Amino acid sequence: MAAKPLPPKGTRDFSPVEMAKRNYIFQTIRDVFCLFGFQQIETPAMEMLSTLMGKYGEEGDKLLFKVQNSGDYFKGLTDEELLSRDAAKLASKFCEKGLRYDLTVPFARYVVTHRDEIVFPFKRFQIQPVWRADRPQKGRYREFYQCDADVIGSTSLMNEAELMRIIHEVFKRFGIRVCIKINNRKILSGIAEYIGEAARIIDITVAIDKLDKIGLDGVNQELADKGVSPEAIEKLQPIINLSGSNAQKMRTLRTTLKSSSIGLAGIDELHELLGYYQLEDAEVDLTLARGLNYYTGTIIEVKALDVEIGSITGGGRYDNLTGIFGMPNVSGVGISFGADRIFDVLNQLDLYPSELAFGTRVLFLNYDKEDGIYCSLLLTKLRSYGISVEMYPDVAGNSKKQNQQLNYAKAKGIPYIVYIDRKGMPDPKYRLKREWKMTLYHWPTGKRKTMHKEELITYLQRKHQKGRI
Amino acid sequence: MAAKPLPPKGTRDFSPVEMAKRNYIFQTIRDVFCLFGFQQIETPAMEMLSTLMGKYGEEGDKLLFKVQNSGDYFKGLTDEELLSRDAAKLASKFCEKGLRYDLTVPFARYVVTHRDEIVFPFKRFQIQPVWRADRPQKGRYREFYQCDADVIGSTSLMNEAELMRIIHEVFKRFGIRVCIKINNRKILSGIAEYIGEAARIIDITVAIDKLDKIGLDGVNQELADKGVSPEAIEKLQPIINLSGSNAQKMRTLRTTLKSSSIGLAGIDELHELLGYYQLEDAEVDLTLARGLNYYTGTIIEVKALDVEIGSITGGGRYDNLTGIFGMPNVSGVGISFGADRIFDVLNQLDLYPSELAFGTRVLFLNYDKEDGIYCSLLLTKLRSYGISVEMYPDVAGNSKKQNQQLNYAKAKGIPYIVYIDRKGMPDPKYRLKREWKMTLYHWPTGKRKTMHKEELITYLQRKHQKGRI
Repeated sequence: MAAKPLPPKGTRDFSPVEMAKRNYIFQTIRDVFCLFGFQQIETPAMEMLSTLMGKYGEEGDKLLFKVQNSGDYFKGLTDEELLSRDAAKLASKFCEKGLRYDLTVPFARYVVTHRDEIVFPFKRFQIQPVWRADRPQKGRYREFYQCDADVIGSTSLMNEAELMRIIHEVFKRFGIRVCIKINNRKILSGIAEYIGEAARIIDITVAIDKLDKIGLDGVNQELADKGVSPEAIEKLQPIINLSGSNAQKMRTLRTTLKSSSIGLAGIDELHELLGYYQLEDAEVDLTLARGLNYYTGTIIEVKALDVEIGSITGGGRYDNLTGIFGMPNVSGVGISFGADRIFDVLNQLDLYPSELAFGTRVLFLNYDKEDGIYCSLLLTKLRSYGISVEMYPDVAGNSKKQNQQLNYAKAKGIPYIVYIDRKGMPDPKYRLKREWKMTLYHWPTGKRKTMHKEELITYLQRKHQKGRI
Repeated sequence: MAAKPLPPKGTRDFSPVEMAKRNYIFQTIRDVFCLFGFQQIETPAMEMLSTLMGKYGEEGDKLLFKVQNSGDYFKGLTDEELLSRDAAKLASKFCEKGLRYDLTVPFARYVVTHRDEIVFPFKRFQIQPVWRADRPQKGRYREFYQCDADVIGSTSLMNEAELMRIIHEVFKRFGIRVCIKINNRKILSGIAEYIGEAARIIDITVAIDKLDKIGLDGVNQELADKGVSPEAIEKLQPIINLSGSNAQKMRTLRTTLKSSSIGLAGIDELHELLGYYQLEDAEVDLTLARGLNYYTGTIIEVKALDVEIGSITGGGRYDNLTGIFGMPNVSGVGISFGADRIFDVLNQLDLYPSELAFGTRVLFLNYDKEDGIYCSLLLTKLRSYGISVEMYPDVAGNSKKQNQQLNYAKAKGIPYIVYIDRKGMPDPKYRLKREWKMTLYHWPTGKRKTMHKEELITYLQRKHQKGRI
């Protein structure tokens, strides 16, 4: 036989068991989004490259999957252009569409496209795959799902608080203990001002962001390498090392940054946000600086307490997302759940609900050509009560094939099997057995229930109503 | 402002209202698939072009969306090759991946990739988008969802009957009256033999397939144009015009095709299938010939009785799907629901359930800066009962902004609004009102309920339990 065909590098198939787990994750997140009044939208997998290019930096442009134009994509190209072999430049001639890289830019495009239909503030969520031509590696895929919720068209910090409560509720439902870290871009600006390095804010926050990974000495070294003065680094130390309760941290900061109006504005925002949020799992963390080029106010990041895995959810406020499409001055704030990492955490902590049943509850064995005709209406009846049942489609002509049917039940995790005892025809008896009580390859000799058709229906229906099947 | 950015031609955004309808369609189909013991899988949007090419005919190859290789996609190409401007040939150099064109070929690839993990018969379903570079036109899109269920690794006709019962159940749940038309490729072969034109079976069935569109004369003309002899056309007439009950049709056919062993085998299969199926909405239709190059046994097609829209679901048996990937002799049978057409039919017949509620049930108005802090825990409490509630995030500083909040409730279809009467602080009263009883732009003067916090919680919880909110 030829080599097995595989899906493209960095992409994955999802088996029935994986799908059951993934559906549980998506459904939980979706339920919570809806509970908070967010509405679902979907956008196409492909966007115009003019929509995508230039939104993710130069590196991002390279990581876009570009889709070749249909028909004659050479049209209008001179020999010189072709022979230049300029891959990046010619890509924009060969391709006018690309696969979406995230859900945020398509959402911004959606808002501008549908601006006349949307009533703001618009609270939308979106759960769809995105594609990135990253080098595949453990835990990093070229196709993966994002689960985003954003509020656009409102500057109120209540939105941040609501998004944090969504995070709290989602992880409560998953049973994952988390810490929700928060910071504010304006405080970072204030700090840069305070240490006299306002122009180097990007370098400073990029360095601070690595505290977890490279430690305090590493951060200080990187700051020095970037040309931050020794005095500034010295002044920065108490801020990096800031500890205590959220209230204590903010009191200290308010004193330290008293001469920076932007810093004080950031502290005020953080204070107001915590006033709305009122739950214990939020922690002010000044070393949090993700996506700084992008966020303009609150920054949010979630860490699992019991697993070392990095951020499992993140987000923040951005002040001019739709400006790139000619609709300025619309403020937004959003979060994104990392479905793949949550999948891993739930696996590691073994937190999937045990009743994550995703299949057939009863298998009817098929040992005689007439069984299929005979059971047709019985299967329909049981299904009408919501019980997922099936009959093995092929008749077992010998004992090997009979074992195949038991094997099928075991492999699919079907808890009950029914054998039709045709001796009593036209009123046969039904033998019902829990699959796990059987020895595979031997029809069970242990205790089993033998019933007439109506008894079987009533019995299974009652079990189903009680959730015991 | 610049021109509105749009999604690519032939693709669509889905608004919250459309998503609610689409989710209802997908969830209904998914529920029924699960009830019948089918298990969900997903495959990546991209497949290797080596997996996709040559599976859909020459025309299909052209309609594949091809994804450009990352990095230097010119590598190894000579100047001559480049300057040949051979779009099709160079596409295979520039691109090694493409977007899936349907769910069937990726499924076949999945079965072969995972052959060692799968216990056969494998009953899988898959609900994912597919992409085709077709010329966009009304009702035809470049991105659309398919909802497929297939059984692979079983030759039993009970599978066909189960798939037909799935169709029956799905459309029963939708409230769409349908006719399930069935035929068998072997009968078509038998007919071609009987009229002495066995070699022209493709031409004959393609022509017969158009009976609905071009009428009997048109079909006969096309047959003549294809070189089918007048005698053969003459012999075909009683078969095209065959009428009566399924049993009558099969009796007549059995006599007519008595000398064709393949024809008789087809009639036997149809007879056995109807024995398993036992419902009234199946109709033997010899003019049904869809996807003939592909199907080898049963052919299924579903028409809505009350809307002119063509086929809304179809499928059939194929005997060697995985053979193209080096795994021969695996028989399969499958169906595919056309989600876009079902969407249109449900719209036309106005069959969406009225309780297709997809959003917030109660909006808390925000008329004072303290309201947000004050209501934080109240919102959490109501959500803990499963009631979807939200507070308008921005404080209304004047009456215009107050009207904006009522407008928001109306636009989102939120049935209840709550106003916090702060006069009684710290124990304010809550005024609850059904939104549709208000005149917009005026706070309602009509009847309303005024309650303390605990009363409000109890009142809404009871309403919610009774499903009246």
